[in-house]
Amino acid sequence: MPRPTAAIVVIGDEILSGKFAEENAAFLIGELRGLGVELRRITVIPDDADDIAATVAEAASRHTWVFTSGGVGPTHDDVTIAAVARALGTDVVRDPDLEARLRAYWGDGIAPANLRLADVPRGATLVWGESTTWPVVTIANVHVLPGVPKLFRKKFLDIRERFRAAPVALARLWIAREEGELAPDLDVVVAAHPGVKLGSYPRFDEADFQVIITLEGAERAAVVAATDALAARVGAAVVRRADP
Amino acid sequence: MPRPTAAIVVIGDEILSGKFAEENAAFLIGELRGLGVELRRITVIPDDADDIAATVAEAASRHTWVFTSGGVGPTHDDVTIAAVARALGTDVVRDPDLEARLRAYWGDGIAPANLRLADVPRGATLVWGESTTWPVVTIANVHVLPGVPKLFRKKFLDIRERFRAAPVALARLWIAREEGELAPDLDVVVAAHPGVKLGSYPRFDEADFQVIITLEGAERAAVVAATDALAARVGAAVVRRADP
Repeated sequence: MPRPTAAIVVIGDEILSGKFAEENAAFLIGELRGLGVELRRITVIPDDADDIAATVAEAASRHTWVFTSGGVGPTHDDVTIAAVARALGTDVVRDPDLEARLRAYWGDGIAPANLRLADVPRGATLVWGESTTWPVVTIANVHVLPGVPKLFRKKFLDIRERFRAAPVALARLWIAREEGELAPDLDVVVAAHPGVKLGSYPRFDEADFQVIITLEGAERAAVVAATDALAARVGAAVVRRADP
Repeated sequence: MPRPTAAIVVIGDEILSGKFAEENAAFLIGELRGLGVELRRITVIPDDADDIAATVAEAASRHTWVFTSGGVGPTHDDVTIAAVARALGTDVVRDPDLEARLRAYWGDGIAPANLRLADVPRGATLVWGESTTWPVVTIANVHVLPGVPKLFRKKFLDIRERFRAAPVALARLWIAREEGELAPDLDVVVAAHPGVKLGSYPRFDEADFQVIITLEGAERAAVVAATDALAARVGAAVVRRADP
């Protein structure tokens, strides 16, 4: 079975303008890695309905899962729900069950703007985790998550196990040789081990190595074989560390 | 004059798979902010020539400036130069001046793979900063920067002043009121101050405020007027802090 893929769409003027640091994609990278989901794209865009709709539509058509962050709430700059609905060719409706839960949560004094939190794309599924007030709004393969980092993490952890796939095997070599000199050896190993992806990352401030090589793939045995083959080609004398 | 806009394209399997944290877009966000350039999009994509070419082509057609990070070097996973050339409808040539400088830097023992560092898109401009060996490769509005964070920062700082525009004025209010209750006041101020962009960011773990409001625009006087108008509407009693 091919590995499931994912895209993250971060919606936030506040990230692009540097008012807040990006935390949600950074968190999700590690989660998806741990779940065995291959993250293929992160896009950070403004709170702009046209841009959100176009970006989500493209991501939804290309990847197994799409996660959006931000633009969900009661104020003028919260346009994600309407834009996601548009991306999937539908419109926005107020969910009566969710509206009832919001009214129970806030009581009679609920601000009318907070009822916008019950607006969902028509045809959406509300995925309930631990919380009985705040579901994850999901439509087709798109999961709409809030931008506030604490809430983003809590909601994702609530639904995480839905996405678990086979783990990825990873090995690393720290090599004391210049990347350009290493290139022909890498080419040979890449050609001989098509199931293993090699990455080469030079570093210029380290005392005992010049390049970190990463090797990863679905089969641990194949990753080990490629790692051993590369270590043998470059020679034990320049392999400073190996993991595992 | 409209504010110049920018897009950042981060090329890196190592970021998407969580092997290294993203540092270059995070750095450039602050730099572009300081330069008065409006960052409109960050995209993180794999070391895939088709994806790079398509992403760079779209970004170059929409924004004043495009900055790429990563995929530049002597190994098999360094495909950015060829992909950027394709994005701009050209091919790759070896630059004789750059080749001569690389040969001078490495001497007779230069690894053949390192000569790939002299490959540039046909028609590219080499922008020389302090370094006389490592220019920034620029073609049309696209600036190709290396993925190693130390080199990325050094090269960008070398060319930074080319991008300086008018500064953006920013003000912030910390408000002790629920975001949903604040929404109608925000709507009024947004409608009355079209030159000022308002952002509303709820927080749930703070003792003395519930929302941070940001106001920004090209004209400081307009930002101050919008900030004063909002503070007056919500009442001094709930404005916990103001900056400036």
